[in-house]
Amino acid sequence: MIVILKRDPNPEQLSNLEQWLMLQGIEIHRSEGSSSLILGLVGDTSGVDMDLIRALDIVEDVKRIQEPYKNANRKFHPDDTVIDVGGVKIGGGNFQVIAGPCSVESPEQICGIAKSVKESGATLLRGGAFKPRTSPYAFQGLKAHGLELLLEAKKETGLPIVTEIMDLSQLDLFGDVDVIQVGARNMQNFELLRQLGHSDKPILLKRGLANTLQELLMSAEYIMAGGNSKVILCERGIRTFETATRNTLDISAVPMLRRMTHLPVIIDPSHATGICKLVKPMSLAAAVSGADGLIIEVHNDPAHALCDGPQSLTPDAFGDVMDAVRNVLPFACREI
Amino acid sequence: MIVILKRDPNPEQLSNLEQWLMLQGIEIHRSEGSSSLILGLVGDTSGVDMDLIRALDIVEDVKRIQEPYKNANRKFHPDDTVIDVGGVKIGGGNFQVIAGPCSVESPEQICGIAKSVKESGATLLRGGAFKPRTSPYAFQGLKAHGLELLLEAKKETGLPIVTEIMDLSQLDLFGDVDVIQVGARNMQNFELLRQLGHSDKPILLKRGLANTLQELLMSAEYIMAGGNSKVILCERGIRTFETATRNTLDISAVPMLRRMTHLPVIIDPSHATGICKLVKPMSLAAAVSGADGLIIEVHNDPAHALCDGPQSLTPDAFGDVMDAVRNVLPFACREI
Amino acid sequence: MIVILKRDPNPEQLSNLEQWLMLQGIEIHRSEGSSSLILGLVGDTSGVDMDLIRALDIVEDVKRIQEPYKNANRKFHPDDTVIDVGGVKIGGGNFQVIAGPCSVESPEQICGIAKSVKESGATLLRGGAFKPRTSPYAFQGLKAHGLELLLEAKKETGLPIVTEIMDLSQLDLFGDVDVIQVGARNMQNFELLRQLGHSDKPILLKRGLANTLQELLMSAEYIMAGGNSKVILCERGIRTFETATRNTLDISAVPMLRRMTHLPVIIDPSHATGICKLVKPMSLAAAVSGADGLIIEVHNDPAHALCDGPQSLTPDAFGDVMDAVRNVLPFACREI
Amino acid sequence: MIVILKRDPNPEQLSNLEQWLMLQGIEIHRSEGSSSLILGLVGDTSGVDMDLIRALDIVEDVKRIQEPYKNANRKFHPDDTVIDVGGVKIGGGNFQVIAGPCSVESPEQICGIAKSVKESGATLLRGGAFKPRTSPYAFQGLKAHGLELLLEAKKETGLPIVTEIMDLSQLDLFGDVDVIQVGARNMQNFELLRQLGHSDKPILLKRGLANTLQELLMSAEYIMAGGNSKVILCERGIRTFETATRNTLDISAVPMLRRMTHLPVIIDPSHATGICKLVKPMSLAAAVSGADGLIIEVHNDPAHALCDGPQSLTPDAFGDVMDAVRNVLPFACREI
Repeated sequence: MIVILKRDPNPEQLSNLEQWLMLQGIEIHRSEGSSSLILGLVGDTSGVDMDLIRALDIVEDVKRIQEPYKNANRKFHPDDTVIDVGGVKIGGGNFQVIAGPCSVESPEQICGIAKSVKESGATLLRGGAFKPRTSPYAFQGLKAHGLELLLEAKKETGLPIVTEIMDLSQLDLFGDVDVIQVGARNMQNFELLRQLGHSDKPILLKRGLANTLQELLMSAEYIMAGGNSKVILCERGIRTFETATRNTLDISAVPMLRRMTHLPVIIDPSHATGICKLVKPMSLAAAVSGADGLIIEVHNDPAHALCDGPQSLTPDAFGDVMDAVRNVLPFACREI
Repeated sequence: MIVILKRDPNPEQLSNLEQWLMLQGIEIHRSEGSSSLILGLVGDTSGVDMDLIRALDIVEDVKRIQEPYKNANRKFHPDDTVIDVGGVKIGGGNFQVIAGPCSVESPEQICGIAKSVKESGATLLRGGAFKPRTSPYAFQGLKAHGLELLLEAKKETGLPIVTEIMDLSQLDLFGDVDVIQVGARNMQNFELLRQLGHSDKPILLKRGLANTLQELLMSAEYIMAGGNSKVILCERGIRTFETATRNTLDISAVPMLRRMTHLPVIIDPSHATGICKLVKPMSLAAAVSGADGLIIEVHNDPAHALCDGPQSLTPDAFGDVMDAVRNVLPFACREI
Repeated sequence: MIVILKRDPNPEQLSNLEQWLMLQGIEIHRSEGSSSLILGLVGDTSGVDMDLIRALDIVEDVKRIQEPYKNANRKFHPDDTVIDVGGVKIGGGNFQVIAGPCSVESPEQICGIAKSVKESGATLLRGGAFKPRTSPYAFQGLKAHGLELLLEAKKETGLPIVTEIMDLSQLDLFGDVDVIQVGARNMQNFELLRQLGHSDKPILLKRGLANTLQELLMSAEYIMAGGNSKVILCERGIRTFETATRNTLDISAVPMLRRMTHLPVIIDPSHATGICKLVKPMSLAAAVSGADGLIIEVHNDPAHALCDGPQSLTPDAFGDVMDAVRNVLPFACREI
Repeated sequence: MIVILKRDPNPEQLSNLEQWLMLQGIEIHRSEGSSSLILGLVGDTSGVDMDLIRALDIVEDVKRIQEPYKNANRKFHPDDTVIDVGGVKIGGGNFQVIAGPCSVESPEQICGIAKSVKESGATLLRGGAFKPRTSPYAFQGLKAHGLELLLEAKKETGLPIVTEIMDLSQLDLFGDVDVIQVGARNMQNFELLRQLGHSDKPILLKRGLANTLQELLMSAEYIMAGGNSKVILCERGIRTFETATRNTLDISAVPMLRRMTHLPVIIDPSHATGICKLVKPMSLAAAVSGADGLIIEVHNDPAHALCDGPQSLTPDAFGDVMDAVRNVLPFACREI
């Protein structure tokens, strides 16, 4: 970290600042420039509050050289992390597709979809039991019963399951879940992240709607700081001014994250766009740009055309996406 | 809610849609336009999923006429809600200022600030015990001990206290807190909101960094749906492309929210701008535009210039802000 | 267009509204709903000001059914537009790559790059003669002399040239240019668009940093309304809160635009990301998601490593991108 | 400007960089830190391309200490600029209100409004002759004839007039206009800015929808670099994800700009919100936060309720706003 001081800083304030930094175990190297004094901070600056320093009267600006995430940082862990989910490997060149319905609704529904997506090539099953809904009056999921149905589908198909936790109080119910998903709205629910750091389960961490890549990695760092290094990052669209799509898929997040971190990165084209016809081109884009996998909404209810959510594919359409993805995967950009 | 159908909709799909809506207790009025059929949905449509309907092949578009929030809606509750916090009234023309430090640090610090801000005219005391921090390595607050110190300051000054809850598991510790704050990052932590709906304490609900005013009201609705109607809304800046300020204060949210809802609306100029020199002009702007109050960070530590966060005022500067606000309050725009 | 009226509208105001609409040649169909009256407007509503109607006291909301763009609308022109640039075809399945330096600097530079990118497979040459620069003190391009150098490079290589116009006053100099580029900052320079509508040259229209896809098409409509239907659309990144990349590439704009319009759509991965290492994965993403081409910055100055702008590729790196793109093109998603 | 080098930079590349900088007249001071070398650049760095340097292999980061705007910078011009428009002074504590219709429509309309707003206290008249419209099919203004009508209204009332130029080709028609407005969409039309720098008329420069405050000042710098220092800055709302208002008024831009620059700053509450009921509270907010004036849309057409645009006030409502603003102006925050 570099602290650029204003011209002729007040000596007492400067001394206060230096003492305060040294109390935090930071070593200070002064560099006299032509017109400004620069302090180079050496040591573990990840706990130093930049905003606080920047606010001081004597400080012109502060610049972090070292990223504030350590465990998640590729600089210190150059090799791709490979996460094993019941034998299914994600990362390090292993591309996996997680598929399933938005909400678990019935045994027939979830088992039917599970079989169908497995046949098309999906290797993990997703399904919502606890559903975050903007309105308190909307259907909130089958909750504990939904988890049971997911486990039933796992038993029938062998697919490991991925499902979302909404609150720490639900954690006990997740004992048999294979991957615990943290939704976009909970990306900075720090208590939840901290507790998941003590779990030994893989965590699928979705990027918040208005969170930067660095903030995403800081949230991963919360989990990793607790000892759980099995974090899968997921870009699922960010909030912008554009209204043609539900969110804006930040596809450049794939190669950027791959440079910043060794953790696997997957894309959720269903939520990112909110439009089922866009799932195929966005899945292809994710695959070639270096993503380690996809999470796709698939619905299977021929009797009720109604239940095809705007972003859900039919099993047939999903099969088509899988075929297309398989075609381009050999040409994916794996450079970092 | 109005459903605009595409030209010549498939009759079977149309019939499916109508049956599904009627199953939800919705009455349907067909209006034949020149070129398109329009369905007017009558009844409680707050639980109907617009996105799901919009995704149907036969649907051109869906338009909500009735806002999806009921308890928070001024249409149904034309009079301002006035919330009484230990005798201090917020809303309905009562303007209150909540002041105090970012973090509670010591008995001397919190009691010192409490006395000082009370003298300047603040009527509630704020202070963070549980601190949401982007980095797991940063100071996370004094937690339970911080709450004790806040209560001590309350005893000494009589000021009701406002402090942030970060997770449901902390709720038991909040028994003597006067106002429970839900931070911006938790605005859509629906489990937390739901449980706070069963509390009888006033809730200070902060707008998320990337959440619309309607989403803010939907989160208020979660609390109110549980029976707790004492919700204070707080605009604290939104995330935009501008980097000169930490966030962008959405000042028009004040009159907009006052039109949309009967709940009190306050402004947090400290977090919205992140720059202490902007607290005064933004406090004035809030006061004249119709806000019901302010929440301002004040720090009091002459020995450590360091501890003046970039957005915190000294007690003197806070007194100056209070004087200025008092001058303009008689001219505030109270129209809706 | 549908106008949804408030309950019990003032009859005189309603009559005023209807008369005003009929004066614009609009036919009105009234539909009585259960609780609200709806006006269906039939005829050419592309000139009707929605905002103005929405502001009326008696109006609840206004909804456009028909898109406000006509010439650019795929609904009325289902077949892909193919634009011929000196024998090079863009659109309708023809994928083209435009490559060249940010600024034209010297005959050796531009001719050297032109030959090199042609060898790698580029089919058009780009190069800036008039440069839009945020600072008045920065280099503004070689202007007229830059255009001459581009023409020289065209003569040597046969590559048609693409270069940016910044103001109408420069138009006379563009007589021998093959494709006139309108930059992001000029996307809503309506006088410029209108005059380019009277040109017979293909126009490369870049999306503004904060413009929606619909606004991009409305700007295309300005050109097309004048009689020039040779418009190539270019997505080059939008401005968001994310700072890891210079802008955020909106990759879903490719399939969305293909659904909305018949005009060719290309991607500029260089400006969208501002980082040369991201050009390859983003080029692949563009190719598979259905884009009709790419525009890529290439610089060739082995002696001055300095001149490799942050987003510019060396000729070798460009050749590598071209090889990769060629591999995935057969698998591109051409569905709409 | 400070260039932070990566550890162990390639000596040849470093030498290239230093030579290139020195060729631009920059003096270089090396500061050896503990782990990184820092170059302090002394001299006029306003023309140095930061992005280009940042892209070099040997560079970790670049940091501008000196703002890239000089003429507009308050550091070098500590006193407020006061602009005299036909005897009406803006800036330096002089608060002025510019009022008038969106478009000039007829002699009766513009003269009627002019008299009415003058009576209420407006000191300049605005009105659009050339109208930037998103759609080529919408009314584009009366153009030259509109300018004539404005001049007629000026003759009748003595109010100086403010009107928008859309293209350089219109400049000859603006000979009798008092203040030339550059609209938000033209804020980075650099050719237009450059030419207006050779004019001796005051320029009202509106902030672009997605432009930062620094970019706004860089555009002012274009005008000032040509010799015209009479630039009035206008914040008129930025584009964000919020849809409740047309744009989001960035009220903190007022005190921020006052700190960054000596130029007068005004607020356009009509375009910023797009909702006439919000004009009054936002005008009050602007006045107390330190703005030097307002530009407000007023319409006067009792016969056609229709013509009250969503953001336009009636003359009566405007009078009410003026009264309210006068009340709070004595308490405005004039600190910087």
